[in-house]
Amino acid sequence: MWQKTLDRVLRSLISNGALRVTYPDGTVRVYGNGTEPAPEIRIKDKALLARLCRNPELAFGEGYMDGAITTGDSTLEGVMRVTIRNVAQGNFPAVYYWKDRVHYLLRPILQRNTLRLARRNVAHHYDLSDDFYRLMLDEDMQYSCAYFATPDLTLDQAQAAKKAHIARKLYLKPGLRVLDIGCGWGGLALTLARDHGVKVTGLTLSQNQHDAATERAARAGLQDRVEIRLQDYRELEGEFDRVVSVGMLEHVGAPHYGEFFGKVASLLKPDGVALIHTIGRNGPPTNQSPWLKKYIFPGGYVPSLSELVEPIAHTGLWHLDIESLRLHYAMTLRCWLERFDENLDQIREMYDDRFIRMWRFYLTICMLVFEERDQTVFQLQLGHRRDAVPLTRNYLYAADGQMRDAAE
Amino acid sequence: MWQKTLDRVLRSLISNGALRVTYPDGTVRVYGNGTEPAPEIRIKDKALLARLCRNPELAFGEGYMDGAITTGDSTLEGVMRVTIRNVAQGNFPAVYYWKDRVHYLLRPILQRNTLRLARRNVAHHYDLSDDFYRLMLDEDMQYSCAYFATPDLTLDQAQAAKKAHIARKLYLKPGLRVLDIGCGWGGLALTLARDHGVKVTGLTLSQNQHDAATERAARAGLQDRVEIRLQDYRELEGEFDRVVSVGMLEHVGAPHYGEFFGKVASLLKPDGVALIHTIGRNGPPTNQSPWLKKYIFPGGYVPSLSELVEPIAHTGLWHLDIESLRLHYAMTLRCWLERFDENLDQIREMYDDRFIRMWRFYLTICMLVFEERDQTVFQLQLGHRRDAVPLTRNYLYAADGQMRDAAE
Repeated sequence: MWQKTLDRVLRSLISNGALRVTYPDGTVRVYGNGTEPAPEIRIKDKALLARLCRNPELAFGEGYMDGAITTGDSTLEGVMRVTIRNVAQGNFPAVYYWKDRVHYLLRPILQRNTLRLARRNVAHHYDLSDDFYRLMLDEDMQYSCAYFATPDLTLDQAQAAKKAHIARKLYLKPGLRVLDIGCGWGGLALTLARDHGVKVTGLTLSQNQHDAATERAARAGLQDRVEIRLQDYRELEGEFDRVVSVGMLEHVGAPHYGEFFGKVASLLKPDGVALIHTIGRNGPPTNQSPWLKKYIFPGGYVPSLSELVEPIAHTGLWHLDIESLRLHYAMTLRCWLERFDENLDQIREMYDDRFIRMWRFYLTICMLVFEERDQTVFQLQLGHRRDAVPLTRNYLYAADGQMRDAAE
Repeated sequence: MWQKTLDRVLRSLISNGALRVTYPDGTVRVYGNGTEPAPEIRIKDKALLARLCRNPELAFGEGYMDGAITTGDSTLEGVMRVTIRNVAQGNFPAVYYWKDRVHYLLRPILQRNTLRLARRNVAHHYDLSDDFYRLMLDEDMQYSCAYFATPDLTLDQAQAAKKAHIARKLYLKPGLRVLDIGCGWGGLALTLARDHGVKVTGLTLSQNQHDAATERAARAGLQDRVEIRLQDYRELEGEFDRVVSVGMLEHVGAPHYGEFFGKVASLLKPDGVALIHTIGRNGPPTNQSPWLKKYIFPGGYVPSLSELVEPIAHTGLWHLDIESLRLHYAMTLRCWLERFDENLDQIREMYDDRFIRMWRFYLTICMLVFEERDQTVFQLQLGHRRDAVPLTRNYLYAADGQMRDAAE
């Protein structure tokens, strides 16, 4: 009975490209109409069929983690690309989008992030072993979208280019006080302090990251210019010349955006510049994948641009610039996936196969939503004054040296 | 009695800077607390007092036009800067903002722009004498925000830079078909056709502009590459590689944004690029000045960024880039005011003193809202595909020639 239902769902869903499904009883069906060989999934457990009908995203992810769904000779990327593309095009039976809508309306409850919850959610993800992250990320441990200033950059170069791009947008001068909300392992804080002579206060909620970043600052001899605090940004007081936040807003949750941007405004000096770098959506607001929420980012939410712009309008802050980095995060995630695969032997010594499948599923679907759905990365440059940065964006693009002179 | 009320309103309003008011009965009051000599208004007609209390913006503008309010030895700019700054800071008694709120809620009715109304509204403003506009604008008759690529550009250079900036954002190749919605006197259409080898269809609702632009195309020998149509964009069918609209959205009205961006999406080819250039607001939505609406732009409305982003999200179009030009329009309007004043003798031969005061009031308050309120100019670059333009914005800033090569 559930097999019939799932068959109907898949006939409705797959119309762009094709997908081959082997059911637990050995039945093989090809959905859609691709000319190339269809990527394949094999469902091995009959009990999964009902769950796939009722909660497809969560059940698929869990089935894959548990080995109850495999992709045969196909790649997970091939299977998920067809699936995600067709979901993005609205080919699911309507009932699934209604469910989405209900979850969306429940956001004020579902995305509550108290100080305590926020700490727990962060620990869930960022307190994994540093050694593991080191095998996936670049040398500086940048766990956010890189900037491919030219498409041929390596991951390390693109992460360095990202930090340089952000530094330019922050319009730095030696001696300025910079606040980095969600500083991760401190890479950006160290770079800004070392290359631009500023003083950085970095905030993180991860004990792990706090200790690692503090140690790095000491090792680099920057302990008098970089201070890392284990603190929620909501509890911080003070005034800063610059505020930067990279890949943190995704953890804030839509009901808290007013609070977030209000706090940024109050921490920022009258002539200051803030740069908020976050994953976002082009289209209207929608929900997170329930699988991602359960296994990877509890409390996480990817905002639509309108959900960001609205609360900002009420802070009185100026939009000095808005950049949409679009495919850069897909390229970054592909690099992480490659490094993950290259280092698989070492990772197997740390984690079991279920974790490894979970992590591959996470990286793969995240990469694909940037290629097939409406996800992008926004860099929002904000300030109290309309003239906090120069009149044109030339200063962001002129060859170094000349850059600042030309802008002033 | 009304003098007392107005006195109370002004005591509440003016707290940043100072304003000197001479009442019809000769009483002189100084409001606020400036150290510099306070700019001055003289109210000469007792009947104005009640109207200034009830509908201050409209009454002040009309009083100034009629000569019943003068600025003594002060400049209109000085008087209006203090006034607008304090209104922007929320210093009006609350009742005025409530009134604003009611008007805002009535937008669906107040901003209805049927095909017929749209034509009439456009004729009101753009069918003024071309000779008059020629005395105020640059040689190419660009009646929209210029782009001061460097702050020392002349008006003519800055308008040329604006067209070049837009051309870069349109990512043109010879032979492409470009639609220009609201083409004015055809300056942008002619420039794109001549400098970039594209074919341009320009739309205007002004008979005046239609005839002038058509004649200019013929004179430039571009009649086979530039077609000017007297047509509402809502009535156009077809597909274009590029869609550009400069300074037209201000006439569309908020209830019609879904219709506008939906039409842009449907007129744009799958790999096309659109560039919408419009005045906008940083802060939350608010109303137009009732004076501007009555005398200058009937049917006009300046959207907040959130009012633009929301309807765009529902078209499926990608935000490829968003630029906020901030002070460029203030600089443009200052140039227009200077040219207006320089050519006053010639203008006096065309129009009476009331028109001249009306026009000075218009240019002055528009300039000041870009300097003192939350107004800016947004350039929204849109496309169906996330990769319709290159991965980074380098192509907009690289020195010519190399520019396109580097981007590809």
